[in-house]
Amino acid sequence: MANVEAKVFPIEVLREFSTRVFRHFGIPETDAAQAADVLASADLRGIDSHGVARLTSYFDLLSEGLINPKPKIKILRSTPSTASIDGDNGLGLVVGPQANEIAMNMAAKAGSGWVSIGNSNHFGIAGYYALKALERDMIGMAMTNSTKLVTPLWGAERMLGTNPIAIAFPGKDEPPIVVDMATCAAAYGKIEMARRRGESIPQGWGIDNQGRGTTDPDDIVAGGALLPLGSDRERGGHKGYGLAVMVDVLCGVLSGANWGPFTPPFALRQEIPARSVGKGIGHFFGAMRIDGFIEADEFKRQMDDFIRVFRATKPAPGTNGPLIPGDPERDAEKVRSKQGVPLIMPVVDELRVISKKIGVPFS
Amino acid sequence: MANVEAKVFPIEVLREFSTRVFRHFGIPETDAAQAADVLASADLRGIDSHGVARLTSYFDLLSEGLINPKPKIKILRSTPSTASIDGDNGLGLVVGPQANEIAMNMAAKAGSGWVSIGNSNHFGIAGYYALKALERDMIGMAMTNSTKLVTPLWGAERMLGTNPIAIAFPGKDEPPIVVDMATCAAAYGKIEMARRRGESIPQGWGIDNQGRGTTDPDDIVAGGALLPLGSDRERGGHKGYGLAVMVDVLCGVLSGANWGPFTPPFALRQEIPARSVGKGIGHFFGAMRIDGFIEADEFKRQMDDFIRVFRATKPAPGTNGPLIPGDPERDAEKVRSKQGVPLIMPVVDELRVISKKIGVPFS
Repeated sequence: MANVEAKVFPIEVLREFSTRVFRHFGIPETDAAQAADVLASADLRGIDSHGVARLTSYFDLLSEGLINPKPKIKILRSTPSTASIDGDNGLGLVVGPQANEIAMNMAAKAGSGWVSIGNSNHFGIAGYYALKALERDMIGMAMTNSTKLVTPLWGAERMLGTNPIAIAFPGKDEPPIVVDMATCAAAYGKIEMARRRGESIPQGWGIDNQGRGTTDPDDIVAGGALLPLGSDRERGGHKGYGLAVMVDVLCGVLSGANWGPFTPPFALRQEIPARSVGKGIGHFFGAMRIDGFIEADEFKRQMDDFIRVFRATKPAPGTNGPLIPGDPERDAEKVRSKQGVPLIMPVVDELRVISKKIGVPFS
Repeated sequence: MANVEAKVFPIEVLREFSTRVFRHFGIPETDAAQAADVLASADLRGIDSHGVARLTSYFDLLSEGLINPKPKIKILRSTPSTASIDGDNGLGLVVGPQANEIAMNMAAKAGSGWVSIGNSNHFGIAGYYALKALERDMIGMAMTNSTKLVTPLWGAERMLGTNPIAIAFPGKDEPPIVVDMATCAAAYGKIEMARRRGESIPQGWGIDNQGRGTTDPDDIVAGGALLPLGSDRERGGHKGYGLAVMVDVLCGVLSGANWGPFTPPFALRQEIPARSVGKGIGHFFGAMRIDGFIEADEFKRQMDDFIRVFRATKPAPGTNGPLIPGDPERDAEKVRSKQGVPLIMPVVDELRVISKKIGVPFS
């Protein structure tokens, strides 16, 4: 955030504003509060790109009638531990939590629950869903596919979304381990930030529209693409590509949603896919009862040991040693829940535009 | 394999030899054949490091009585879709297939099956297990933890194994998608190969024993470590680290096996861990019935479409365009099942030593 002018807002102000914006479109009270909670969680956890910074995109899609404000989700198929769900083109922020709940309820009865959901829209941060399982002594998993931005290794065009994977494991006295990662090398937000600052980007982040590696962020924006985690063949770019494919199949193909380059765009200004191969975008949720494998308390004690052992790793020069996955988000949450959430001015201005349009106050 | 002298063997010769070596230790006929089949699969699929090249390590451990030749695996806990299993210190090549079968049988009844198995030993290639599920119209998943070789991001020592993840999805007319990947940037075998040739290695593969990045393969062997997928912070090294942690917890902590730096070594000459936090090493298997989500035939038709769309990706300069995960192994299998498996001479010599020791012929 350094060098970029920002204004700080208490999280409750952002939560209240989001809720009222969603309410404006006739989204029921509980659903609106739920959707606002997912966005607030991203803002608190420091994942700025996925919080209220996205409210304008949701606002636009709702304004255009492209998202159903009152979805009735439908279970298409199920077994005791699996289900596919049609999200009725609702907000991912509403449909996602409902589907995740179904996965956890299945796990409560059958030991595990695995739900693939199609006909949905962007669902916020994957970590939000994985964390929910911890409240029920379960291991939680969440994935989603998304608009094309990433090239397969050896490709020269956008074919896959940033397709994140999240998984959470509880500790006992230690905080949980929360892995929450896109399957590309670097986030698109970092490209935009470098561009705004006129800086070049590291090798391995992206390609230009001819498929050549580039360090110019403009090249990526102008028809280039992000590279998968691992970047090139030598450093394992085929692995990041494989993970992105896995997410796309579990979320898209398995649920009957769109996949690959046909995943619909999140923002109105983005390119419309060449064809439709399913409905909306897709998510995948998993929950497993810890005591379906081992006594939950024993598991958590081992996790505490695990976390302490990894914190005690000999540090690389110039570092304080390894973090535990989830540390940076936890640190952000500690600070922001007290001191508020800094929003860069372009985001503040966008929210003011919404405020003026629909008459919901925003200071 | 270029520049390294090799001798070619028909796969049946290798399979027969492995089976007889396992039989020598009193391993029952079916189990010995099963173990040999996992090794043969690695050799056929071109994953040379995991085939008969490892027979000497299994031989040594069996000779020393460190592996139980007649394990009776035991289900420790279960729900309709989950189980933890004690592998009774058997060969991973025997215990792994049995546990994987249990996961698939659970899936047949409950929609999915998830098994965490401890007190086991190295199980060969993860892809072998994921592929088994396809025969039953299921999606298959397999992971294992392993001896420490990889540093966490910002660490300066070996704390994690190469902890592979495999997942397989069937096509209809197209071959399956098979992701089978270690969660580090490059395989240890590539370090050894560069060392043998006196070549340097790319940046991003490993660190020396002070935690500094290195391009000298000797540094990694002499107390250094491999880097996780993504290599450094800028290119997502925290993501590869997070994935390795995920595998370690699902395989190790969840089953009551050892984890992290305490995972026991595979070869006799390797360092003994500082303490024991569980039993043996651990694996994790998952199987999901496709028709627990979507009609299996419809899924496979979509997968064919998916595969064709990705094959048609615009190619990056100097390449033929993206592969489908599983292509290289499939290509190797096609060639090697007809023409035989090339073994480098040090491996041939090792097998000859075994042959002489126990009087099982090997030509």
